[in-house]
Order: sequence, then C-alpha cells, then structure tokens
Amino acid sequence: MTNPTACLLIIGNEVLSGRTQDANLKYLATRLGEIGIPLREARIIPDVRDTIVATVNEVRATYDHVFTTGGIGPTHDDITSECVAAAFGVPWEPHPEAWRRLESHYARQVPPGDFNAARQRMATMPRGAALIDNIVSIAPGFTMGNVHVLAGVPRIMQAMFEALAPTLKGGPPVVSAAVHATGLMEGRIAEGLAGIQARYPDLDIGSYPYYRQGGGGVAVVAKGTEEAAVRQAAHDVLVFLRACGAQPLEGEPT
Amino acid sequence: MTNPTACLLIIGNEVLSGRTQDANLKYLATRLGEIGIPLREARIIPDVRDTIVATVNEVRATYDHVFTTGGIGPTHDDITSECVAAAFGVPWEPHPEAWRRLESHYARQVPPGDFNAARQRMATMPRGAALIDNIVSIAPGFTMGNVHVLAGVPRIMQAMFEALAPTLKGGPPVVSAAVHATGLMEGRIAEGLAGIQARYPDLDIGSYPYYRQGGGGVAVVAKGTEEAAVRQAAHDVLVFLRACGAQPLEGEPT
Repeated sequence: MTNPTACLLIIGNEVLSGRTQDANLKYLATRLGEIGIPLREARIIPDVRDTIVATVNEVRATYDHVFTTGGIGPTHDDITSECVAAAFGVPWEPHPEAWRRLESHYARQVPPGDFNAARQRMATMPRGAALIDNIVSIAPGFTMGNVHVLAGVPRIMQAMFEALAPTLKGGPPVVSAAVHATGLMEGRIAEGLAGIQARYPDLDIGSYPYYRQGGGGVAVVAKGTEEAAVRQAAHDVLVFLRACGAQPLEGEPT
Repeated sequence: MTNPTACLLIIGNEVLSGRTQDANLKYLATRLGEIGIPLREARIIPDVRDTIVATVNEVRATYDHVFTTGGIGPTHDDITSECVAAAFGVPWEPHPEAWRRLESHYARQVPPGDFNAARQRMATMPRGAALIDNIVSIAPGFTMGNVHVLAGVPRIMQAMFEALAPTLKGGPPVVSAAVHATGLMEGRIAEGLAGIQARYPDLDIGSYPYYRQGGGGVAVVAKGTEEAAVRQAAHDVLVFLRACGAQPLEGEPT
C-alpha cells in the first residue's frame, strides 16, 4: 500500500523576511508522518495574490493533500482565503456557520466586541468550503477540495490540525529508528552506510553529523513504513558502527 | 532601482520529516534583506535526484540568485552537488583546488585522515564551479551560474555565506520599523491599517498578533527599501494605535 502525500504552503512575508521563525513545519511533518501522509515538499511564499493562487493550483494538482498556514486573520495582509477561492474559481462569500460562530463569539464578549467588516472577512470563504474547528480562537479554518487552510499562529494551527486529523485517511505510519556514535566522522562510515542503504531500497537511511560540547558525532536514521525492516536496518547500522571501533547507542543524541 | 531577488532551496529529508528544525532560512533571510537581495521564496525538498534537478532548474530561471543548503557532505544521501551538475548539463568532476584543500587537510590530521572515496566526493563539483571558502570544516561550497551551494549545518552555512556575501551585488537594503501595542485585537485595527497600507503602496505593512504571559497584542511592521517612508509609515501606525486607545511602543514586543 502506498502512502498519500502532502505538501505544506507557509504563507507569510514575516517568515520570508526572517522576522518570524516558522514553528509549524516541524509539528505538521511529525504528525503527518505518524498519520501516514508524509510531507514531500514545503514552500514558503509571500502574501502576494498571484503567487498564492498559482502555487495553490500547482501543488494541489501534484500532491494528495495540501496544508496552508497563515494569512486567515482579519487584516489587509490576510489574503489566503480569497486566494484559495480564486484558485478554485469559486465565489468568496459569507459562510453561514462560520458567520454564526463569530457573531455569537463577539456578542458574548464583555463588553460585546464589534463583529465589524474586518472580522466578517474571517467568516468569508470559498463556496463549498468545509469548516475546520478552532477551539482556541473560534474563527475556523476550512477544507476546500484537497486543500486544508489553517492558521499561522502555532497554538491555533495545532488545534485546527488535531480537529482535522481524524478525517484524514493515511497509509501505514512512517516509523524511524536512530543510532548515534560520538567521535565518529561521516567520511569514515560513508561507504559502509551506502552498502546498508543498498540492501534496504524501500527505506531512507540518512546520516546527520552533530556538534555537541564534549564531542560531536554522527546520527544515522532509518525511516520507512515497514517497521521490521526499519528495526533490522538500524541493527545493521549498530553492528557496522561497532566494527568501525565506535561505541554506538540506539536513539538520537541528547 | 529594483532589488535582485533570491530563492532558498533547503534540501534534506530530515527537515521534511520533522526530525530537524531548519535554522538556515531565518539567518539567510535576514542577511539577504540587509544586503538588498530579498528572499522571495523558499522550498524544502527531499534528497531525491529528479526533484532536486527539476527544482534547481525551475527556480534559477525565476530568481536572480538561488541558495541551496544541505546535501554536500560525504554520505550516500548527499547528492546536491551532482544534481546541480545535472541541472546545468555539465560533467561532475574533481575540482583541483577543492581536491588540494581536502587532501592537505586530511594529511595534516594526527593521525592522518584517510582522503577516501567518500571524502573525495566533497571535492567533486560541476565543471565551472567557483569555490566558496569554508573556514569551519574546509570542504568548500560553490557557485555555479546564479546557484550558490552551501552546507546544511548552520555554523558552516553561515561561514560560507559570509565568505560569499562580499561578492553579491545587492540593491538598496530592506529596512523595517515595528510598533506594538499590548491589549489590542487585530480585528479592531484592521480597517485603519488597511488605510495606512493604501497610502504606502511601495511598502509592506504587516500585522502580527502575539501571545505573551501578561497579555498579548499586535505588532505592526513596515518594511521596504525607502527608509524615510518606512519611518513615516511606522509613525502613522503609532498615531493611529494611540487614537484606538492603546499605548503603543516602538520596536518589537519582548
């Protein structure tokens, strides 16, 4: 069984300018791996209408799922929702249920908040959008076709993703096993690792140098959807690193 | 004068799987903004030959500069260099000066290191590549056309970028000015901010909610290459936020 694939679009000038460190990719990549919908690509693009529309249309045709983060708040630079409508060629219009949720949310505030034109934009969506609940700050995300539109603020994004996750049909979970050895140089073990990779063509075997106070080393990670093969490959790596004179440990370096 | 543009390709399964938090985008985005070559897009792609070759060719035709990070070490999953050669349609062959540097580096180690086949791959480059010095770990990066190939390890990437930076011709630096106000909701100020943005079409004015112990708020950032306009726009934001009843401060929230 093959796994469905995912692409992440991180939408926001603040990430591209270096002002904000993205924190959503790591969360989504990890959770999507667990669900069995591995992330195959991520793009970080600016708050520019033509760019967003063209990119959404390109990646939704390429991947089974597209997740977007950012650009669904009330301000003028929040244009993701209307761009997704344009990408799908449908009207961007008030969503009755989103409207009801936000209207009653602001009415319940003490003193009552103003459900003004800017906030009404958060209840305006592509025709046909299915809401994604937001237990943190009410204003929902939405799914349009295979495109899942999430907030950019990590706490809100995570709540939205967890509301959506039970509806996503994944393949076998991606599992991994790591072995690391302090004091070992990548260049010494490269040939042996390539040999192990060749014996496990369905797995990804990655080699990652690390630098720590008290001595760096190499972490080797085997990853794939066949758990038995992953365990066996990690064991082979352990045996090989021992043969290189190292004292390897299972797991990631701490 | 318009600014040259940049695209960043982050190459590595470990970022896409969520194992590793990328730390290079923020550094490069900030430095490129200072140099006046703003980052317009970033893509994170896996260690897959066809994907790397196709992506390099797509983005080098679109942007003035392409920076890649990752995939230039000695192990089997380090394939960036040979993929760049394939993208340019040139042979991938030993680079005499890179070879000399690495050979003498390993000869100087005590006991001498083995300049083996895996390490020789780090001295193998697309024909015509110009070296980028690496004062941290010797093995150089390189520039091929408008594609600058850098290491993935942040400390090494930064050293390579700083060796390269003086050779890059940028436009006017991108400057920014921030104003923030605790206790303010984006939805209340959205319309006024849109009005300010409309008065400064050459600037990007972004609105970013923040969440802090003791009260969240909104940071508004004006950004552009005309410093006087950036300062004036930030001042207009300050005056506007005061008129909304907030006590805004210049700079980012801490």
